[in-house]
Parts: sequence; C-alpha cells; structure tokens
Amino acid sequence: MNTGQSGLDIVLIHHPVVNKIGEIIGSAVTNLDLHDIARAAKTYGVDNYYIVTPYEDQQHLVNEILEHWKSGHGAKYNPARKAALELITLSSDLENVIETVTRERGVAPLLLTTSAREQEKTLSYARIRQKIKAKEPLLLLFGTGHGLAPEVMEKADFSLAPVGAGTGYNHLSVRSAVSIILDRLLSTESS
Amino acid sequence: MNTGQSGLDIVLIHHPVVNKIGEIIGSAVTNLDLHDIARAAKTYGVDNYYIVTPYEDQQHLVNEILEHWKSGHGAKYNPARKAALELITLSSDLENVIETVTRERGVAPLLLTTSAREQEKTLSYARIRQKIKAKEPLLLLFGTGHGLAPEVMEKADFSLAPVGAGTGYNHLSVRSAVSIILDRLLSTESS
Repeated sequence: MNTGQSGLDIVLIHHPVVNKIGEIIGSAVTNLDLHDIARAAKTYGVDNYYIVTPYEDQQHLVNEILEHWKSGHGAKYNPARKAALELITLSSDLENVIETVTRERGVAPLLLTTSAREQEKTLSYARIRQKIKAKEPLLLLFGTGHGLAPEVMEKADFSLAPVGAGTGYNHLSVRSAVSIILDRLLSTESS
Repeated sequence: MNTGQSGLDIVLIHHPVVNKIGEIIGSAVTNLDLHDIARAAKTYGVDNYYIVTPYEDQQHLVNEILEHWKSGHGAKYNPARKAALELITLSSDLENVIETVTRERGVAPLLLTTSAREQEKTLSYARIRQKIKAKEPLLLLFGTGHGLAPEVMEKADFSLAPVGAGTGYNHLSVRSAVSIILDRLLSTESS
C-alpha cells in the first residue's frame, strides 16, 4: 500500500450493506465505481482506495478490470486512468483492510463512516481537515446499495454529517458522495 | 421547464466538445451521466438539467431511458429516481436551451462554463453563491469528452475555477465534477 501523501484511505464496501428495506445484503461491483472513485481519489491525493467484496466472482471481475487498465491495452491507451486505478487494492473484508493499514502506518486509523442520514457521533468536516493537516491516519468508509450495515456503523469512531442542501431529497450515487466528501476534506481552495 | 427553487440550471453538452488532442467532436450519451447528475441536481435543488445532443439516435436513446424511469416500470420500482430524472430536458443545441431559459425566466441567464484548466474570466464560488442567493438566473455548462469546445468557452460570461486539490492530477469524471461544483454552490453546511 501507499503510505504517502494525505494519510487518508477510502474503502468502498459491497458487503455488509443494506438494501432498500434495511436487510443485510452483498452488492455487485459497478465498473464506474472503480473508475470514478479512483479518479477522484487520485485528484484529491487519497493514498489508497480499497474495494471490499467477499465474493470470488466479483473479485475476479475487479482483477480483470484492473489488469486491463494497469498493464493491458488500457494502460497504453490512457496512462492517466492507469495512475488512478493503481490506487485500488482489493480486499475480502473490512477487518483485513484495517489490519493492513494499521500495520503499514504503525498506528490504527480513525474509522469514519458516511451516510445519507444523520448519525449519533459526528465529526465536522473542519475538524477532519485539521486531522488530515496533522497527518493522523484516517480510514473513510462508503457503502454501496442503500448504505453501510449497522454493524459497520457501530464499529466506527465517528460519522461524517450527510452532504446535501436540505432540500428533503438526498439520493446521491456513491460516486457523487465520495467526490463531494473528498472535495470538502482535501480541496485547497476555499469554496 | 421548472422555474422554481434555485434559479440555477445545468447543461451537459455532447457537441461541440473536444477529444484528447483538442479536435471538435460529438460524444455518445452515457447512461450514468443521466442518473448520477440528475440525482445530484435533485439533491442540491437545481431547477433543470438539460442534455444537449444534436444526434437523433442519441436523442432516441435518452428518450427511451427517460420513458422507462418516468412512466415505465422504473417509475413504480424507484420513485426517487423518477423524481430526479424528471429534471431532465433533452435539447438539440445550446442555443435552444438559452432561448428557452431566457423566455421562461424573463431574463437571459448568466452563462458559466466549467473546465479542468484555469480560464481567463473566472468568477469565485463565493461570488456565485451570492448570485444564487439573489435569485439571478444562472446556466452552468459542463462538457463531456475532454471538455467544452473553445466556441462554447468564448460564449460564456465567466468560468468557474477548476476544482481539485493541487495534486497535479485532475481527471475527474464529469459526474464527479458536477457533484462537487453543486456542493460548492448550493450546500447549506459550511465545509
């Protein structure tokens, strides 16, 4: 893994997540989740982007996509895409990711979850920006489907406040949510 | 069109845009550009989301997708998606969009372009937020492919500064760029 730039790693979880009615499910990997989120991660200086899925067929699919862009025809055709997708590491579960990050950084990362709904223990974007400036290792978790399962939410140290504009409608794609949150945490410009 | 909430309309342009080496091209419509950007637009209170393509086969494709989600099976299956996709209006060119907005709002909108590269006449995000508060009609243009053609950039009143984090890498998907810019312009929270 890359322990370089920001101290911030992100994780996209495909299991355990919830479906529309709150049941625990595993979701399929979406090709554009790999591309869009890797490109945003690279643009904002995220160190690593972990894809978590326990399913072997899905892991196989992710490896095939990465192979194409990292060393196959795609790497020659589009070197910028290669640079983004090189941030991706595949993992079978969140525990493995936490262990790897803890071992490589020499300290357990602060576990932060994201949600479209307000959670109990939230940490402000301003406060997290300070932690990034102070080089504290952070692991930021995103859920596919209809969001992270309760067992993942409970494991976290803090949650981020939902993004949005108070319109009463909040159904962003996870690709949009990640992009917005990285901009809030890592952009150089004041908005 | 909807002249309601924010005074802000967005446009996704498929022609004229540029390719990797700066030639003027027309790009194909991407299904997830419709979905992700409509969801972000609805979440942030954008009034209308215009898809511009001059190609009849592409217009046909867009209409089929919209039909499915606005009145077909998709509308029942996912009403939240229907609410987002209802913001979309298809148009053959940018001039038509400008005419429609001008007629419906009773005043020509301020034309704002976006780019991954710094442009000459930029307007800060803070300044545009003030204009939104003052209910000035704004038309915000995004390019597919490798960005808006020079002729579109020249037509604009102002450009927005590129988003990002000064990492030297800036290859966001247009879906990510729209999401980030809407958050910067319309979010209620301070980041």
